[in-house]
Amino acid sequence: MGESFGAYTLGDDAALMDYVSSVNIACGFHAGDALVMQRTVELASQKGLAIGAHPGYPDLQGFGRRSMQLDADEVYAIVLYQVGALRAFAHAAGTRLTHVKPHGALYNAAARDAMLATAIAEAVRAVGDDLLLVGLSGSCLIDAGKAAGLRTASEVFADRTYQDDGKLTPRTAAGALVTDAGAAVRQVLQMVLASTVTSVSGKEIPVVADTVCIHGDGAHAFAFARLLSEQLQYNNVSIKHP
Amino acid sequence: MGESFGAYTLGDDAALMDYVSSVNIACGFHAGDALVMQRTVELASQKGLAIGAHPGYPDLQGFGRRSMQLDADEVYAIVLYQVGALRAFAHAAGTRLTHVKPHGALYNAAARDAMLATAIAEAVRAVGDDLLLVGLSGSCLIDAGKAAGLRTASEVFADRTYQDDGKLTPRTAAGALVTDAGAAVRQVLQMVLASTVTSVSGKEIPVVADTVCIHGDGAHAFAFARLLSEQLQYNNVSIKHP
Amino acid sequence: MGESFGAYTLGDDAALMDYVSSVNIACGFHAGDALVMQRTVELASQKGLAIGAHPGYPDLQGFGRRSMQLDADEVYAIVLYQVGALRAFAHAAGTRLTHVKPHGALYNAAARDAMLATAIAEAVRAVGDDLLLVGLSGSCLIDAGKAAGLRTASEVFADRTYQDDGKLTPRTAAGALVTDAGAAVRQVLQMVLASTVTSVSGKEIPVVADTVCIHGDGAHAFAFARLLSEQLQYNNVSIKHP
Amino acid sequence: MGESFGAYTLGDDAALMDYVSSVNIACGFHAGDALVMQRTVELASQKGLAIGAHPGYPDLQGFGRRSMQLDADEVYAIVLYQVGALRAFAHAAGTRLTHVKPHGALYNAAARDAMLATAIAEAVRAVGDDLLLVGLSGSCLIDAGKAAGLRTASEVFADRTYQDDGKLTPRTAAGALVTDAGAAVRQVLQMVLASTVTSVSGKEIPVVADTVCIHGDGAHAFAFARLLSEQLQYNNVSIKHP
Repeated sequence: MGESFGAYTLGDDAALMDYVSSVNIACGFHAGDALVMQRTVELASQKGLAIGAHPGYPDLQGFGRRSMQLDADEVYAIVLYQVGALRAFAHAAGTRLTHVKPHGALYNAAARDAMLATAIAEAVRAVGDDLLLVGLSGSCLIDAGKAAGLRTASEVFADRTYQDDGKLTPRTAAGALVTDAGAAVRQVLQMVLASTVTSVSGKEIPVVADTVCIHGDGAHAFAFARLLSEQLQYNNVSIKHP
Repeated sequence: MGESFGAYTLGDDAALMDYVSSVNIACGFHAGDALVMQRTVELASQKGLAIGAHPGYPDLQGFGRRSMQLDADEVYAIVLYQVGALRAFAHAAGTRLTHVKPHGALYNAAARDAMLATAIAEAVRAVGDDLLLVGLSGSCLIDAGKAAGLRTASEVFADRTYQDDGKLTPRTAAGALVTDAGAAVRQVLQMVLASTVTSVSGKEIPVVADTVCIHGDGAHAFAFARLLSEQLQYNNVSIKHP
Repeated sequence: MGESFGAYTLGDDAALMDYVSSVNIACGFHAGDALVMQRTVELASQKGLAIGAHPGYPDLQGFGRRSMQLDADEVYAIVLYQVGALRAFAHAAGTRLTHVKPHGALYNAAARDAMLATAIAEAVRAVGDDLLLVGLSGSCLIDAGKAAGLRTASEVFADRTYQDDGKLTPRTAAGALVTDAGAAVRQVLQMVLASTVTSVSGKEIPVVADTVCIHGDGAHAFAFARLLSEQLQYNNVSIKHP
Repeated sequence: MGESFGAYTLGDDAALMDYVSSVNIACGFHAGDALVMQRTVELASQKGLAIGAHPGYPDLQGFGRRSMQLDADEVYAIVLYQVGALRAFAHAAGTRLTHVKPHGALYNAAARDAMLATAIAEAVRAVGDDLLLVGLSGSCLIDAGKAAGLRTASEVFADRTYQDDGKLTPRTAAGALVTDAGAAVRQVLQMVLASTVTSVSGKEIPVVADTVCIHGDGAHAFAFARLLSEQLQYNNVSIKHP
């Protein structure tokens, strides 16, 4: 959330906030600006949501979704910078930062590159060793977070398909997205209740599903969040703070 | 300090750090980047200097020296963002942030615009009410800091001339700079020892001189810092943390 | 037009293009990016519209609407840069650049500051002395364009109110906008047919109305453009290329 | 050249210009700004040098040296944008743009990715089919330029080592740079006179050496340019416009 920038509005954060328990807020590098961050943190705080930092690559034009070749020391510095800034907004709103989830291409790089994952985990710990680190279920980032002594949350995706090795199908590949809302809900229920996901080739793969990602910038984000929230509760899964 | 950016190097921070007791470190808006901030904070911490945030306007090209028409709520947000980020680097280096001094055109705007000054003071207090706010001696910013319950430090300039009303002669005006090192040292000694400064028209004006600004980006910054440091000590003025 | 940026979409350029004869396309400083420029120019070229460059201040976050203190030589350089870039896209699309209109705060500064107006006019002439310079009716920019030997077009606004001296009421002031579509159409008809406008205090003021500005980013831009187009034609005013 | 930015100065362009026949000028994406471009083009024009555009990735912080994952249509657009802008400065200075050489990571990507190379060649042709395209000797970019009907110039490097396949050793690898000035001069003489280069493993590899790259941002750029210029002339190789 908080991905608007200056005169550019993206997503309907206020509406979506009614159907989630925690939010990841952009930190001004891939999206968002200082004023948007301040307002989004304030709103999330009023609604009692768990507030997370969503640091990304310094690439507003590419929305942080393009690979960039950053060294580990630079990744450490940009994550520390962004998380530190968002933490200040949480503090100013009278609440606290609870978690950190890297965004976009940085999230993907951290899933498979152990050095970058370690740089991110150390930057998060430097801001606060009570912070929860959110990463792709089964990824390097979860390992790095544990090695750094952080609590971690393994994330699964409602609207992305999985490959046989448990990785997400890249956005640029065909069949990367689960576009049918019903199928997306069924995928989440299977991941949460059975701790498995069915890959694109039809295999059942084990996953740890501590948290489910909902994208705030999609056209139907709000409707889908409501549907998923209802279906989880119907199946006796309650949505809680991490 | 910390005003380098990517491949661009500005100033010789390591040399200058031997002759000052406190530093103001750029926060990535008018100058500096996350990696430069991390390294500059680390170095200042190793040398035992008081570490300050030096937030500026979001204008790398203009080095934060151009007026920009920002609303008070945006100034609040950009100061909170930058100070929060720098505080995180200080925390990561095992030290703490001690003070905040706005940079360039933001500093000047805060000297004369009470609303902007209040926005800055409130942003600083939101990061930490133990932070010291540095502003131009006799300016709105000092008033706003006191009103916000912050400790303040009144700053004087070695290399800038003063007008009859106690304001700095604008950089764009003739005679704005004190270019002779001896004259600059004498101006500082008068401000510190007699609590007055001689204006461009020859008047003696009262000033409060808690801290003296040395620019880190000038060609002779290092030599001047050493000279001033020696002359202050020769006159039994010791240089201390704020 | 062309004010989208990366993942951020602004306005519905394709729809609006059916009701105008010429467009001003953002050049990547206050809005737009290279890909958006390329596509917008291509689309406008296909629809046979007169293509203009819409250079602005280097301030994406403020959408070029904030005053910035740039020297005349820098204004010259940023206008030449942006117009040169847009001209290349027009050339690549097999068409040509016909006009230039400064955007936002740069437009306003050029209306009242003769030195900036001259810098802009000279930058436009340096790109091509066949270019038409669009400025606020009765402003410095029109004078500077004529002095530089350029053809000029005096612009009037449908959705902004006028002060007694012929200047626009600043956006930040109350009553700056004509929010009623009918009133906006009547204002345009009066300006075009009678060469006068009624100021906020009720005076009839002379204006030269060569071209009417329609904002592309408003919520009702499309509907208003259609309404105005119909009413002008109903009053036997045909809309032509500049 | 022209790689300064705002308050940041890089290289001593004026000194270096006395020892080269053509310059590649940064276009504001990886380095440079509009005012720096204007002044650099003006200076090169006064010295009668062939003026080239040096477009790069939109990454000032990484100086355009970091890989970025841009699609071919975006590469087309950013090259057209930058070359168009620089062409306007050349036109304003009363001279013309003669050539285009992509910069840094974009240059490297264009050397091995045929789709990006084609996008660049088409962007250059769209600005002007009389433009000379400069690329790494033996690379995709030279092929793409020829396919687009452009004249091409095959470039060799004085201060970089070559691998057995004729590619440059990546900057991040050990032994990438030829740091000894004498060795660099000998490498150039061999490439120009014998049309071969000795690779890091000791093989003699054929190269086409139409133009030699001298980096303007190195510490010894000026001294090396003079030395190379003298040695080439001593060996009866005259330096000419492309």
